Amino acid sequence: AQITGANTVSSTSALPSALTRDEVRSVAPALERYGRETLLDRLWRRPDLSPRDRSLVTLAALIARGQAAELPTYVNLALDSGVKPSEVSEVVTHLAFYAGWGNAMAAVAAVREIFAARGIEADQLPAASPPLLPLDEAGEAQRAAGVAQSVRPVAPGLDEFTTDVLFRDLWLRPDLAPRDRSLVTVSALITAGHVAQLPFHLNRAMDHGLTRAQASEVVAHLAFYAGWPNAFSAVPVVKGVLEGRPG
Amino acid sequence: AQITGANTVSSTSALPSALTRDEVRSVAPALERYGRETLLDRLWRRPDLSPRDRSLVTLAALIARGQAAELPTYVNLALDSGVKPSEVSEVVTHLAFYAGWGNAMAAVAAVREIFAARGIEADQLPAASPPLLPLDEAGEAQRAAGVAQSVRPVAPGLDEFTTDVLFRDLWLRPDLAPRDRSLVTVSALITAGHVAQLPFHLNRAMDHGLTRAQASEVVAHLAFYAGWPNAFSAVPVVKGVLEGRPG
Amino acid sequence: AQITGANTVSSTSALPSALTRDEVRSVAPALERYGRETLLDRLWRRPDLSPRDRSLVTLAALIARGQAAELPTYVNLALDSGVKPSEVSEVVTHLAFYAGWGNAMAAVAAVREIFAARGIEADQLPAASPPLLPLDEAGEAQRAAGVAQSVRPVAPGLDEFTTDVLFRDLWLRPDLAPRDRSLVTVSALITAGHVAQLPFHLNRAMDHGLTRAQASEVVAHLAFYAGWPNAFSAVPVVKGVLEGRPG
Repeated sequence: AQITGANTVSSTSALPSALTRDEVRSVAPALERYGRETLLDRLWRRPDLSPRDRSLVTLAALIARGQAAELPTYVNLALDSGVKPSEVSEVVTHLAFYAGWGNAMAAVAAVREIFAARGIEADQLPAASPPLLPLDEAGEAQRAAGVAQSVRPVAPGLDEFTTDVLFRDLWLRPDLAPRDRSLVTVSALITAGHVAQLPFHLNRAMDHGLTRAQASEVVAHLAFYAGWPNAFSAVPVVKGVLEGRPG
Repeated sequence: AQITGANTVSSTSALPSALTRDEVRSVAPALERYGRETLLDRLWRRPDLSPRDRSLVTLAALIARGQAAELPTYVNLALDSGVKPSEVSEVVTHLAFYAGWGNAMAAVAAVREIFAARGIEADQLPAASPPLLPLDEAGEAQRAAGVAQSVRPVAPGLDEFTTDVLFRDLWLRPDLAPRDRSLVTVSALITAGHVAQLPFHLNRAMDHGLTRAQASEVVAHLAFYAGWPNAFSAVPVVKGVLEGRPG
Repeated sequence: AQITGANTVSSTSALPSALTRDEVRSVAPALERYGRETLLDRLWRRPDLSPRDRSLVTLAALIARGQAAELPTYVNLALDSGVKPSEVSEVVTHLAFYAGWGNAMAAVAAVREIFAARGIEADQLPAASPPLLPLDEAGEAQRAAGVAQSVRPVAPGLDEFTTDVLFRDLWLRPDLAPRDRSLVTVSALITAGHVAQLPFHLNRAMDHGLTRAQASEVVAHLAFYAGWPNAFSAVPVVKGVLEGRPG
């Protein structure tokens, strides 16, 4: 699958899969049809979410589900859709924490082959310890106070790592915009059925610029990549967040 | 593992696994024993669910969990137990939507090798766009009205795809009986811990002919293939459905 | 990664991953840094959980998530940290039931290569049917009575297998101490987001000797290996268990 313009996905090449059309057809002719008609020609062309955003959402879903076999196709699609190598790198690092260390390691194994094939080298990757974005002191104080009350008495180590490593380091890394970092986090949460953490992170995503229409379309997109049940489970939670926001 | 008759699974050959008995024994002798005594000779022989049904349930569980390594054994077992190639094909297509696109792609990669080895070709597979089963207009109107209220205001794209692609296309495909399609859906839901969607789909399965005894036995069977916690989480939800039905 | 002493993990060799540092760095330099600074030099050295316990927790997480690619590194780390081959074997067998049959089969495929490479043979493995630990008749009667009421009417097969295979066989196998078996079970439950079964099994773990500090630290450890959302979802449930216990 190739992006031929800012807002279109070519349907002349492959399915959105590491498998060829003929391979899919040799097991399930209908699945090949859905891949073309429903995914490529319909879902990926819907206007409420750009191919770049859909790529970020899909990468998050595949990494969160450990589906490394499909990653090469979608990493290429992401890079062709305007996601920078440094952003792919940050998505993997971010999901080490929000999906699990092993998920990130599996993603590294898949992504490094794509990076090698495309000649992407160290100078295009984020620094290990770059100057960080400025901290929103008031917001972070509020978050930390909540977690200090709920988490610290039960799991002090978790509270400590959440503050030091996540909110005063990972989230401030500059090579993935806060809005995109939140989009990836929200996508990973919906994918894994973690609706309890969704209100905090969806509000954060919208504070960082994700629109209502985009939030809705993330749910529709993830129905395909995380399965219908996860999308349906997200609906009432997304509804609560949307209703709770002004405007 | 081979089926030697309509209702028996031979225990003379392999374990129900892609691994040989000796391979399993070289790590965990007890696991080899449980595979023989508990799974093959006991679980798979229990009368309340036929080997054909158990095969459908197990395929759904393996695909929903992305366990492609075990699929070849169980696809062979399914085909030996009376599941048709066209039905295996439809199970994969169906679970693209209920488990996720990447899960279906991983299943395609595994199933196509089995199909090739058994000489199963295009003429044994369902058409990409066959004449569909008749739609239950009243039931669909009721479902659509519920979703229009709950889902449409939050995720209009999800509502649209659910109606067009799922309930007016996928569910009406004729090569997997509605009862079996529901059985696969229920199995995927229990496997992934999606109990919120279970009442709708278990009722639908029973409307399509799944008996109370079969529903109960699906839970017992999935304890082994989806893990005890998922089976236990399903129990109160299944209880509610069974109690809410007449007779 | 190698254990160089009872309580330390060497940071001079590899990352805690099957990938090399350079491989990780070629995709995500920050991830390599977090692997060294945050996981190896900080998390694994925290005093509230020994490297042996952390190894058991991590093996449970990797097996429960089906992350076989990372298993070899962590099986070696476990064996270097004081986990016996017979205990690794029992962890795999145990998780066949608590994570799923396919998860155990995937673990067997990974572990047998490590066992072969280290010359671990049948005489170091548990017997398939060893003399069992004595049954706590009163506790088991209480558990069985609860399940007879909740599970038996809905899924009689599940009730039967739970009693015969799990609580009168698997849990009484002598080659993994009840405290460690519970630790593995609790870790698998948190990893998979199965908080409903957590109170029973965390209480059981603490009855078997898991301390409050260890229980807390399991949550912090699993944030890294099962992802932050699963750790956060476990917090209120762990809180309830800790508050409900005397002392």
